Amino acid sequence: MKNAIDKLIEKIKETNNPTVIGLDPRYDMLPKSIKNKYGLNLKDVGNAIIEYNFSLIDSVHDIIPAIKPQIAFYEMFGIDGIKAFFETCKYAKEKGMIVIADMKRGDIGTTAQAYSNASIGKTLVEDIEFPIFDVDFVTVNPYLGTDGIIPFIQDCKKYNKGIFVLVKTSNKSSGDLQDLKLEDGKTIYEKVAELVNSLGKDLVGEYGYSSISAVVGATYPKQLKELREIMKLSYFLIPGYGAQGGKAEDIALGFDGNGLGGIVNASRSLMCAWKSDRWKDLYTDDQFAEATRAEAIRMRDELNLAISNVKGSGKYEKK
Amino acid sequence: MKNAIDKLIEKIKETNNPTVIGLDPRYDMLPKSIKNKYGLNLKDVGNAIIEYNFSLIDSVHDIIPAIKPQIAFYEMFGIDGIKAFFETCKYAKEKGMIVIADMKRGDIGTTAQAYSNASIGKTLVEDIEFPIFDVDFVTVNPYLGTDGIIPFIQDCKKYNKGIFVLVKTSNKSSGDLQDLKLEDGKTIYEKVAELVNSLGKDLVGEYGYSSISAVVGATYPKQLKELREIMKLSYFLIPGYGAQGGKAEDIALGFDGNGLGGIVNASRSLMCAWKSDRWKDLYTDDQFAEATRAEAIRMRDELNLAISNVKGSGKYEKK
Repeated sequence: MKNAIDKLIEKIKETNNPTVIGLDPRYDMLPKSIKNKYGLNLKDVGNAIIEYNFSLIDSVHDIIPAIKPQIAFYEMFGIDGIKAFFETCKYAKEKGMIVIADMKRGDIGTTAQAYSNASIGKTLVEDIEFPIFDVDFVTVNPYLGTDGIIPFIQDCKKYNKGIFVLVKTSNKSSGDLQDLKLEDGKTIYEKVAELVNSLGKDLVGEYGYSSISAVVGATYPKQLKELREIMKLSYFLIPGYGAQGGKAEDIALGFDGNGLGGIVNASRSLMCAWKSDRWKDLYTDDQFAEATRAEAIRMRDELNLAISNVKGSGKYEKK
Repeated sequence: MKNAIDKLIEKIKETNNPTVIGLDPRYDMLPKSIKNKYGLNLKDVGNAIIEYNFSLIDSVHDIIPAIKPQIAFYEMFGIDGIKAFFETCKYAKEKGMIVIADMKRGDIGTTAQAYSNASIGKTLVEDIEFPIFDVDFVTVNPYLGTDGIIPFIQDCKKYNKGIFVLVKTSNKSSGDLQDLKLEDGKTIYEKVAELVNSLGKDLVGEYGYSSISAVVGATYPKQLKELREIMKLSYFLIPGYGAQGGKAEDIALGFDGNGLGGIVNASRSLMCAWKSDRWKDLYTDDQFAEATRAEAIRMRDELNLAISNVKGSGKYEKK
């Protein structure tokens, strides 16, 4: 069986698109054409989110390789929201997309194991194994140290799954902790980078990348470039493009000379394309899914151009 | 309205017990007397967990001030597990207990806001505010920096709630990151400690403690003592007692001279008391809840003795 990162890379090659669509549905961003069909209660909101997400997946599943639902935006609607999260992951998989669950889980060993069961592993009840969210990748927070990461890695091996560990995040105050300098002159994020790179050694696939990879924000191009050097084995999940300010030419620094090495997340700019300055005169509220497709194509071309400008035109070759 | 930490402290005074019962139900730990009533599917397991937790809450709600359900052990059973988590929090509140949701959430600002809505805040749909889990406290991971913590703090102010931020965790590899020394000679956990202490200043209650407080593990007594000095404003949520190896005399170091300053978590040792060497000859499987009560009383007395030995006999006075 192909390992998880190889499956992701092959999907990126197939679509010629290093984009992941972040499915982070807030109620106020839903199109009126959907809102109007549902009531103002959590169950209806859950169903409205399912309809919205399914429409977006239908519209882009052949041109975007993966979805990244952020579970916080589902959990905020309670059990109905979690149900929408589950249905979204399931539907995207049925449509052939890779699912990266953005859960940023991190806890002590036994608890990390429970989180891993829920996301990429399975839950044992007597001798029956139940898949729960059963996604391809989950994001992991490293603050608890290696014993909070290892249960996930074991499940990656067992079930051919992957994780992205937070190294350098895209938010403004990511430096509060991550940029602090240690005695030896290294920053905390560099230390985490070395840890992740070394933990990933057993799960390197055909393209030279590991299923144990890293989150590195688009908003810190200097660090992105530096981490590309340190973390030879890590594929980068790159948030921060678009609404957060990350530019295609910055993001290109996270890629290698083969056009591989990164997958770029966009949430609002794709989900709400029909409301954006760029597309609002061309698409109406009930054409939201078409607008997302148009923006996905524009973003794909912009990224591919920037990547080939910065990194040369080598495309998707094995190392 | 009383702030969150004052409500917790007054519940500790009322019960004369600085214990929080960790409700982390794994299937294999459920008593046979409950297991036998339910089938081997996720819905039934969810209902079995509800029955188990409710029995434990019934048994100890008058002698233990708070519960700490770890959401990972519910999420691992999917939507039915999350439903059990919700019902457990609701039932404990009805019984007058304080609920500390152990969710260790941490993310960039907008996402942290969504997590905060789900746990201690409310979710807005048009102009209707929906409480979701509506717990008293939630645990927060600091790796993303201040903008991942501030949305929670704002909700603490708005809704009279509290958070415990991870400072020094109880697991073996907590030192991988948390103990690293920075340029200025301080460790990362000390840096986080200072940050949390300073973020908590606006929410200090009648007893001199803040609703913005800290998780500090029982398994590192040296650090517990040191952090008690640095974090004058922080109440400590102290995991690691019992099964993880933390001893009462170590834990006492996290308390002040008034017998305040800490609340000690025990999960397995309380939940599975009927199977423990100490109680197994006195209680049968279907008396699991009585065994938990007996162990709760024993633990309470052990903690109170150790705290008064180490810290003097001052009891619950305002600073």
